[in-house]
Amino acid sequence: MAMSGRTSRDLRNSSRFDVVRAVYAAITPTRQELVELTGLSFATVSNIVNELIGVGMLVEASRENSNGGRPRVRLRVPPERGQLVGVDVAETYIHVDVFDAALTRQSRFEREITERSDPDYVLAEIAESIRAGTTDGDLTTVLGVGISLPGQVEPEAGVSVFAPNWAWRDVPVQSMLAERIPAPLYVDNPLKANTVAELWFGHGREVDDLVTINLGTGVGAGIAWHGDLLRGVSNNAGEWGHTTLIMDGRECRCGRRGCVEAYVGVPGLIASFEDAHPGHRYLRGGQTTFVRAVRAGLEAGEPEAQWMIEMFAHHLGAGLANVVNMINPRRIVLCGWTVNLLGTWLLEPTRTRMIAESISGSVAVTDLVLTAIPDRPVALGMATLALQRFLEHVGLPSRPGRPLGAVPGR
Amino acid sequence: MAMSGRTSRDLRNSSRFDVVRAVYAAITPTRQELVELTGLSFATVSNIVNELIGVGMLVEASRENSNGGRPRVRLRVPPERGQLVGVDVAETYIHVDVFDAALTRQSRFEREITERSDPDYVLAEIAESIRAGTTDGDLTTVLGVGISLPGQVEPEAGVSVFAPNWAWRDVPVQSMLAERIPAPLYVDNPLKANTVAELWFGHGREVDDLVTINLGTGVGAGIAWHGDLLRGVSNNAGEWGHTTLIMDGRECRCGRRGCVEAYVGVPGLIASFEDAHPGHRYLRGGQTTFVRAVRAGLEAGEPEAQWMIEMFAHHLGAGLANVVNMINPRRIVLCGWTVNLLGTWLLEPTRTRMIAESISGSVAVTDLVLTAIPDRPVALGMATLALQRFLEHVGLPSRPGRPLGAVPGR
Repeated sequence: MAMSGRTSRDLRNSSRFDVVRAVYAAITPTRQELVELTGLSFATVSNIVNELIGVGMLVEASRENSNGGRPRVRLRVPPERGQLVGVDVAETYIHVDVFDAALTRQSRFEREITERSDPDYVLAEIAESIRAGTTDGDLTTVLGVGISLPGQVEPEAGVSVFAPNWAWRDVPVQSMLAERIPAPLYVDNPLKANTVAELWFGHGREVDDLVTINLGTGVGAGIAWHGDLLRGVSNNAGEWGHTTLIMDGRECRCGRRGCVEAYVGVPGLIASFEDAHPGHRYLRGGQTTFVRAVRAGLEAGEPEAQWMIEMFAHHLGAGLANVVNMINPRRIVLCGWTVNLLGTWLLEPTRTRMIAESISGSVAVTDLVLTAIPDRPVALGMATLALQRFLEHVGLPSRPGRPLGAVPGR
Repeated sequence: MAMSGRTSRDLRNSSRFDVVRAVYAAITPTRQELVELTGLSFATVSNIVNELIGVGMLVEASRENSNGGRPRVRLRVPPERGQLVGVDVAETYIHVDVFDAALTRQSRFEREITERSDPDYVLAEIAESIRAGTTDGDLTTVLGVGISLPGQVEPEAGVSVFAPNWAWRDVPVQSMLAERIPAPLYVDNPLKANTVAELWFGHGREVDDLVTINLGTGVGAGIAWHGDLLRGVSNNAGEWGHTTLIMDGRECRCGRRGCVEAYVGVPGLIASFEDAHPGHRYLRGGQTTFVRAVRAGLEAGEPEAQWMIEMFAHHLGAGLANVVNMINPRRIVLCGWTVNLLGTWLLEPTRTRMIAESISGSVAVTDLVLTAIPDRPVALGMATLALQRFLEHVGLPSRPGRPLGAVPGR
């Protein structure tokens, strides 16, 4: 029989997660403010704060007198405690953001990788990028490195299970990088990283039941339920981009037909536009050029650009209604580079279409919003996951819900 | 900031849930067996067992000598403790199953309701059916009544929010019935009830991350994650029947177009069949007649019946792939009256289509199976929810995960 077998240790990890998330969201909270933010008892908060002070992840920042009562002690994460590195690896680039322990960004590095896609090449480029992003390539003060990889990833094993655009299968990324990068490593995929960033530093500060929708060349979702990432049994939940929108419809780059991505991924947008406006000047370039041309067209009031937004919203709103009807979340957060360029114009018509296509009692409780973290949420999310991994290393696991446990056999 | 604010009380409720579920699944377990089934400590199990003995929900059934050691005490739920009633209300019938406290069925009652659909009439019929199902209409020994209603239901408020086929909006079912049925009442919808039945008494005994798919006139899903029902923010998660399979496709009875239900609900099956085989003898009757005729045709090896199964699997498999890709569950359980009649023939071709349409790394960990509870799972699930509600009434809440809390404003 499958039982959840929750223990008081799980509860402690879960409470610690709440406190750590509140510390990072509130910047310099008092213990009493942490009690209010988390709903935990003062004793629990105090114990967890003392644990974090013990490993140097919290210090007393200042004492304020409160009209003759006990002075209020403000807490903060000491930036000098070490560095957290977030790495966003896509098919065409490696982006590295280096943060201090308080998750304030210190430096940024990016390089293109377009020549080869074999693991040896890509992993060597990742290692070099991490060294280039950190001061003098010194990794001794790095508390953790989180690396987001495209495709299917098993975080516990540190393995890239399948990256279709690179033809990777079961590449042991973590162990292959361990020699080059002597710091705690953690791998995951961008949908999970996006959602973690939003949970800690974006809309998750207000709402615990949300779905992030990432729109770019590829598209996908991340589901957070009660503040916990719903990862799925093999870490693949949220592959919304490859759910069917029009059965047996347009071919998708995944090889199937009619996927959401085939209509709302940028190549899908271009295909729709080309059908209706063959030879149009928006089409004279690659994906980025097209989306930028549409944006410029919207700013100039061009009807073809407006047409593109309406068609985008028509498909996207129907795809989001599927999320509303299936998950019934409190908030849906749009993010990704298409959203950064077109979000302002896209939001209203998409919401209208989503409402029309959704169960009324579900959509009545759902907001549709733009991301609160337009600037590199994947790198921030991966640095945050690296922080969680570091706290585990020092004996202070900070996890919501049930521990991940081993991934069942494939 | 939204924080989960889990407390040790939540943990206790969650552990109690595990113990209660194990007691009902194992029939006459020893304390040691409950420890093994739940993964909880002996002390925790013992405390919870003592609480349950205290309210008369557990007794010591027998003592076995174990080779000179301490005698092993077997525990059981005393059937005579009281009755639990599960009521399955659909647009055309009211079905009542009466169980003893150990959830063994004692009696069954069903009546048709086809004349009217106004709340006064339907609720009077429900009350009469409950009285007709219990011995001499005596409700003094009833511990709880769980009533499943079609459409959108708010269990905490006891309200039918929206039942489209009856044109009900915000009917306060629980308070309207309270006078006629002086027992603790609980309302929910059939998708949730199905899933609870499967979690306690079916596939949930092996698997904690599952999705039930109910196929009949209407269709829908119930999602269980880590043993906990994923209800959604307004209890509407799992409206898979009204996710889009073919955007702008066939009209659905919900008023939208291209919903999964428009293709795999029985009226959708009939529409597909009629297109391809106009005037065919399978069509000479209502929905049940049609499905029975297809089954007889399959038994006789008729090609039209085989055609229907292939078309059914073509749509259903694609719809299930959306569940696989979005949720990444361990198991998908098919149930409902169409499945009871056609499941044997439907399973293999549906699985083949589902695998072809799913992300490989997700579907590799997903089983597709037929329900373990073909006989009235909705009534059993509602009686189980009534049991949980009763335990709350006597001060022993037994809930997985975070408490439900208030439903956010609509």
